Amino acid sequence: MSTIPTATISRLVTYLRILSQLEAQGIKKTSSDHLAEEAQVSAFQVRKDLAYFGRFGTRGAGYSVPTLRRELRRILGLTRAWNVVIVGMGRLGQAIANYPSFDQYDFLLKGVFDIDPSKIGQKILGLEVQHTDALPTVVREKGVDIGLITVPQSAAQDAADALVRAGVKGILNFAPTIINVSREVHVEPVDFLAGLKRLSFYIQNPQLKEELA
Amino acid sequence: MSTIPTATISRLVTYLRILSQLEAQGIKKTSSDHLAEEAQVSAFQVRKDLAYFGRFGTRGAGYSVPTLRRELRRILGLTRAWNVVIVGMGRLGQAIANYPSFDQYDFLLKGVFDIDPSKIGQKILGLEVQHTDALPTVVREKGVDIGLITVPQSAAQDAADALVRAGVKGILNFAPTIINVSREVHVEPVDFLAGLKRLSFYIQNPQLKEELA
Repeated sequence: MSTIPTATISRLVTYLRILSQLEAQGIKKTSSDHLAEEAQVSAFQVRKDLAYFGRFGTRGAGYSVPTLRRELRRILGLTRAWNVVIVGMGRLGQAIANYPSFDQYDFLLKGVFDIDPSKIGQKILGLEVQHTDALPTVVREKGVDIGLITVPQSAAQDAADALVRAGVKGILNFAPTIINVSREVHVEPVDFLAGLKRLSFYIQNPQLKEELA
Repeated sequence: MSTIPTATISRLVTYLRILSQLEAQGIKKTSSDHLAEEAQVSAFQVRKDLAYFGRFGTRGAGYSVPTLRRELRRILGLTRAWNVVIVGMGRLGQAIANYPSFDQYDFLLKGVFDIDPSKIGQKILGLEVQHTDALPTVVREKGVDIGLITVPQSAAQDAADALVRAGVKGILNFAPTIINVSREVHVEPVDFLAGLKRLSFYIQNPQLKEELA
């Protein structure tokens, strides 16, 4: 079975963002050196990451920005739209639902859920907040692929279980806890406290340069 | 100059969270196998990550939960409090400011900022929203170490420049764009769209198992 380092997938997402910015600026050609500098990795790392997926660009001539951008979008599965739901309509869930570039990237919000009776029935972006009991129906009828969890830590595993039972294939977990799901469901954590703790490390240890490769 | 892979620092944060959960459950001993299973990496990876920082635990006897937790907190610089400010008081900034476990982890919110005249003077958690022009004064007087950026993408670089000029040592960037700062300032991105794009990859490519090491 092939394996691709998760860090490679993270970097592909970064390269794609850089390519989109170059394209918006009307720039047609780029190089592994330029991508490396912008992504703060080595040029060797850029070439190695891309090599998992084939041959791109021409030695000495660099990469065509629109071609490489199209290839990365294809590799990442971003040439189609993904239907998503959010479980947890507190402040964080509402902030995420209202994130301006959310559906600009073809992540289409199809439902918002909570278990708090005072929240159910409220309208968020034209969607009525529903009880999580309605998840299986919504996931099936709307073809939902991905669930976002924005509930408190103590409710995160229940929310994950409800999403998995309802049939989502992936979960983006904002709760600061590890959730356990069956192996077929992929979980991506978004833990900003983890980011703060990494910052704390680097501020505390300025002599420990980050490894760039 | 020593280098530590950034992925190692991310995993130390994960191990610390697992140890805190074990300690809360009254569990006194653990093993690299258990940490590995919970963190979804290999036991070899756990031992390798810890080996950057010294020798922990005893062969065959595993790790003492309170001792390893204390050591990881020390390594990560989490035995002290860090003073933080947030730039951007839209929905996301307000959600982050109100994140329940924020100061539980000794990240102390010392100021909230925006450039929108309609927001300035509003009270958030007892703090008055100030114009970013006041950043240098607040950073100096309150001893602020870290700035969180929760402004839209188009304002992110300006917010970063203001924070760096004011003297913060680290930035947690929620805006979905790469910001450029001087090399002494460490930036941690929190990009939940990147998480969605990684999910998209793994759902699209179920045959590509994640590499666990």
